[in-house]
Amino acid sequence: MPTTAPTPSAVDPAALRRLLDGDHAEIRDAVRAFLSRPSSAPYAGHSIEEHRAQVLAWARELADEGRTALGYPAAYGGAGDVGASVAAFETLAFGDLSLLVKLGVQFGLFGGAVLHLGTERHHERYLRDIATLRLPGCFAMTETGHGSDVQALQTTATYDPEHDELVVHTPADSARKDYIGNAARDGRMAVVFAQLVVGGESRGVHAVLVPLRDERGETLPGVRIEDCGAKLGLDGVDNGRIWFDHVRVPREALLDRYARIEPDGTYTSPIESPGRRFFTMLGTLIQGRVSICGAAVNAAKVALTIAVRHALTRRQFGPRDGEETLLLDYRTHQRRLLVPLAHTYALHVAQDELRGRLHEVFGGDGGDDRARRELETLAAGLKAVATWHATATIQECREACGGAGYLRGNRFAALKADTDVFTTFEGDNTVLLQLAAKNLLTDFRDQLGELDPLGTMTFFAGQVLETLAERTAVRELLGRIADELRPGRDDGRDLLDRAAQLELLRWRAGHMLSGAARRLKAGIDAGRDPFAVLVDCQDHVVACARAWVDRVVAEAFARAVERAGDGPQREALDRLCHLYALSTIERERGWFQEHGRLSSTRSKAVVKAVNRLCAEVRPDAGALVDAFGVPAASLGDAAAVAAG
Amino acid sequence: MPTTAPTPSAVDPAALRRLLDGDHAEIRDAVRAFLSRPSSAPYAGHSIEEHRAQVLAWARELADEGRTALGYPAAYGGAGDVGASVAAFETLAFGDLSLLVKLGVQFGLFGGAVLHLGTERHHERYLRDIATLRLPGCFAMTETGHGSDVQALQTTATYDPEHDELVVHTPADSARKDYIGNAARDGRMAVVFAQLVVGGESRGVHAVLVPLRDERGETLPGVRIEDCGAKLGLDGVDNGRIWFDHVRVPREALLDRYARIEPDGTYTSPIESPGRRFFTMLGTLIQGRVSICGAAVNAAKVALTIAVRHALTRRQFGPRDGEETLLLDYRTHQRRLLVPLAHTYALHVAQDELRGRLHEVFGGDGGDDRARRELETLAAGLKAVATWHATATIQECREACGGAGYLRGNRFAALKADTDVFTTFEGDNTVLLQLAAKNLLTDFRDQLGELDPLGTMTFFAGQVLETLAERTAVRELLGRIADELRPGRDDGRDLLDRAAQLELLRWRAGHMLSGAARRLKAGIDAGRDPFAVLVDCQDHVVACARAWVDRVVAEAFARAVERAGDGPQREALDRLCHLYALSTIERERGWFQEHGRLSSTRSKAVVKAVNRLCAEVRPDAGALVDAFGVPAASLGDAAAVAAG
Repeated sequence: MPTTAPTPSAVDPAALRRLLDGDHAEIRDAVRAFLSRPSSAPYAGHSIEEHRAQVLAWARELADEGRTALGYPAAYGGAGDVGASVAAFETLAFGDLSLLVKLGVQFGLFGGAVLHLGTERHHERYLRDIATLRLPGCFAMTETGHGSDVQALQTTATYDPEHDELVVHTPADSARKDYIGNAARDGRMAVVFAQLVVGGESRGVHAVLVPLRDERGETLPGVRIEDCGAKLGLDGVDNGRIWFDHVRVPREALLDRYARIEPDGTYTSPIESPGRRFFTMLGTLIQGRVSICGAAVNAAKVALTIAVRHALTRRQFGPRDGEETLLLDYRTHQRRLLVPLAHTYALHVAQDELRGRLHEVFGGDGGDDRARRELETLAAGLKAVATWHATATIQECREACGGAGYLRGNRFAALKADTDVFTTFEGDNTVLLQLAAKNLLTDFRDQLGELDPLGTMTFFAGQVLETLAERTAVRELLGRIADELRPGRDDGRDLLDRAAQLELLRWRAGHMLSGAARRLKAGIDAGRDPFAVLVDCQDHVVACARAWVDRVVAEAFARAVERAGDGPQREALDRLCHLYALSTIERERGWFQEHGRLSSTRSKAVVKAVNRLCAEVRPDAGALVDAFGVPAASLGDAAAVAAG
Repeated sequence: MPTTAPTPSAVDPAALRRLLDGDHAEIRDAVRAFLSRPSSAPYAGHSIEEHRAQVLAWARELADEGRTALGYPAAYGGAGDVGASVAAFETLAFGDLSLLVKLGVQFGLFGGAVLHLGTERHHERYLRDIATLRLPGCFAMTETGHGSDVQALQTTATYDPEHDELVVHTPADSARKDYIGNAARDGRMAVVFAQLVVGGESRGVHAVLVPLRDERGETLPGVRIEDCGAKLGLDGVDNGRIWFDHVRVPREALLDRYARIEPDGTYTSPIESPGRRFFTMLGTLIQGRVSICGAAVNAAKVALTIAVRHALTRRQFGPRDGEETLLLDYRTHQRRLLVPLAHTYALHVAQDELRGRLHEVFGGDGGDDRARRELETLAAGLKAVATWHATATIQECREACGGAGYLRGNRFAALKADTDVFTTFEGDNTVLLQLAAKNLLTDFRDQLGELDPLGTMTFFAGQVLETLAERTAVRELLGRIADELRPGRDDGRDLLDRAAQLELLRWRAGHMLSGAARRLKAGIDAGRDPFAVLVDCQDHVVACARAWVDRVVAEAFARAVERAGDGPQREALDRLCHLYALSTIERERGWFQEHGRLSSTRSKAVVKAVNRLCAEVRPDAGALVDAFGVPAASLGDAAAVAAG
């Protein structure tokens, strides 16, 4: 009964937090301590310039304390610990998100480009100054005319052999660099992505270091910078637009890890294919995506902490003559908050695995092509899913706090506004899902290619048979009649079998992938334009990547439960893992029925199982948000919400 | 093929706009003209006080031009035209939404309460001054402790027979009036909702007029007002908190249409049941809900206009060696924008019907109880669906404009922030859907009650049989085998039959309603606590109201297509109506399969049909947003977006 006191939770929030914090507990606690300083409270005023100054001051404070170079090699003042560096960044997402993004631009994008695209000469000359913020810089990739399709950027960097210089130029307004963080106010230098022209021949997009301002902050000749002005959020970040008018830099300004201009003016690259060269360079964006993914998950934690605590304090309506009922004892409220809570836990552990792989590939020997591609796929897919999750969860939490949630003091205003752009920067989510799908399809083709001709034929024949079986659906239907008539199958208890849940999610991802491959192959085999074929399958292809992410997140969560030892924390995670998997299956139950993988009876049982799981998670709700360890200072006037 | 020029649209935007504007074209154009004045441009600065002053100045401008009393009786300077008044309000939602809400508070909530809850004495004394904004006022209902459950408000108004006065008092901080618009800065008087105590007996919540400030704006003795401060959005509205310390007002301050205190101190009411009396008074909130519903639909139009025009200008990627492709020629982009576009048209015509009914009930003889209840149900349901639609659509449109959409100049910042509270004010959406469901269940019971005992028995027996049939699902499955084997059924062409679409949506609404009734009845018959039974069915009950709204919106849209005459405008509406209905069925296809109403094959055909319809609507997209007639001044830096 909703109005009686709920079963007390056996979960120890501190123990669960240790599980969640994992290997990076120390750095996370250090960030929590920073955010708990009174001086670190999220900016609450209305002046953009004041906010920007505050953000720069915070960044300097962290740099002065030596906290901003964790991911850089020890030789340049860093700790060579990519994983810890991302974990610290993620945790900063509890606080003012303008600081997060400012740090991401400076140390992740700008510094990361110098580190990964440059060579020792660049490292020696710049990395220390970047790590200490003595050299604030920009990552000037996006142009007004091209954001997602960066291969088509229009800015040029033309090699002038006479002066041994590169001439960086903005040929049209659509080629101006746009939305560039650190540009409007603080940046002294930029990594500029431009079409490299050597010997009159275009070599594709490369990165060039171009100074923007002198020591006193005056814009240098040939450079024009405009302030992007007020934004929807993140007003503490100084985004700007940059035009270059035949700006000359020495040949050495080319970040030349993947392509060099020799002193004699010839162009060489260890990677022959211009396409592959370009995508190798883009690989440096991966760390940004992994970081934003983790930040999105942590922003969702802040919103959930506020909303769950509110729902455990606020009472409204109730039985006649009885005490009013806590919001979290209403089923609709449980569904609104506890399902996103389960997904937040799921994404947290998936992010742990993603960060771990990033650490191996970028912190270790660099990994082989396959490991890099797998990392790229996972980063692209998880970033898209996690940032959409954050947007939806923060919105749901705001609404679940009613009028109190609408007051600016309660963090939802900033959380909504600041995280909004996560879904479109560091790669637009829809474009990222297509990138993930492309990689999955490539792997799939490679695997097929490893089959001998007979194997391939058998595979496609199997596909055709499967399709026929689906179309007529007779076989399944006959099977389902038996299924439906079997007693006791609709109580849904067997749905709590983890292996069965994972099998469903795996089957869906696999079936969608092979189906997309078949459609694309059939279209191209029929002589249609490949681009037209792709557009025609686009919704299928995007859904395919989404289904794959659902699967890998569920698998990661299942592994995390296995690792969690015994006791109440494991049991709580186990319930959340069921809730994650079953609410995902519930969301896709239209598809599962279409493909004969859920009978109508079992599909209804999934809905009931989600309701039941919500009720079972309910007693742990307070402990589950406490375990996130969001500093009180990051919760805004949470006391007011709770009282409100 | 996506890269060839699309079929030109035969739709005449001006003719379609006349269809959409309908009877209220004149007043809508007058509002468009107001919004097109340079002085009416949405406030773009960062000072809350400046924004508030600007909003008050706009409100005075409109009042001075005699545009703010349309809905009031002619005797008090109005035009007695409730419909036109709501249409004008809706259209103002194209502009700065702080002005919209400020006007809603003053003329809708405050003035509406005086008009509908007061009697001639109050009308004579106050309405003219309210209509001209000489008397700015507040609607002081919500308290910190009670928002949704207003029957449990704690503020008291105690009749003191000795002095023939009412004593208004805030007994605790949780009883302070909270989030009250017009309170922090401008309000001189408030309609205060309080527990009326007469002769020592509590008579339930009643409305009392209480002066707040004197002519010079000084707060009166016994009144304490605090500014709610910065909010997530709507910063041009001065929300505040109010405490009353034994504030005395004359007996006549009671708004006494539904309850009077006689000079001899006895309490009388034409409505005997305190519950019914209270809900009759709450009926005055209906106009607010209808108005917000229309405003939400129009806010979505602004976002769609910006995003569709952007998608018709912006190119990204494309076939090898071909021209880059317009965003709107990508299928994922079509789904993201054109499905919400179809829903916006659907909600627009549903709002037309809702406004028409409001006009009949409130502008005419008041209607009977049944008409009022039907209006209340429709207003509650549509308001919830339309405001959630606005939130989701604005978010989708922002993301579809990428980085350009994130700049503050492009209206998305304001649209997102300002409309956010629509989902929780004027009734929290989840609570409103429960209210709608309650009314639907009451009607259902009444209809059952009109059956003789045998009829009732037959009905429930039919229900049981239906349930059994569903559980075993054998009958449907056998039927579906025949269905699946029939050739040509999976092309989905027959899904374009409007009657079949409506029948599916009607069946769903009816089935969910009778199912909810059965579950509630069974629980109560089994002797369980009614509140516990309700909580247990809560997700079902809420979904039931939602399904009913889907049905009435589809029916309204179908009628609007019928009324649209012949020609390209009708054809465009017809396609949109199909897209609305089929995308709704697609969203719920899990349920339709669970209930044997869609075979797996036909369910897949629905998905394909939605894709095909998106492609068919695509050529009209520009004309369809032009027809909304959103003033250029309301589109922000749309030129920058289009270029961006």
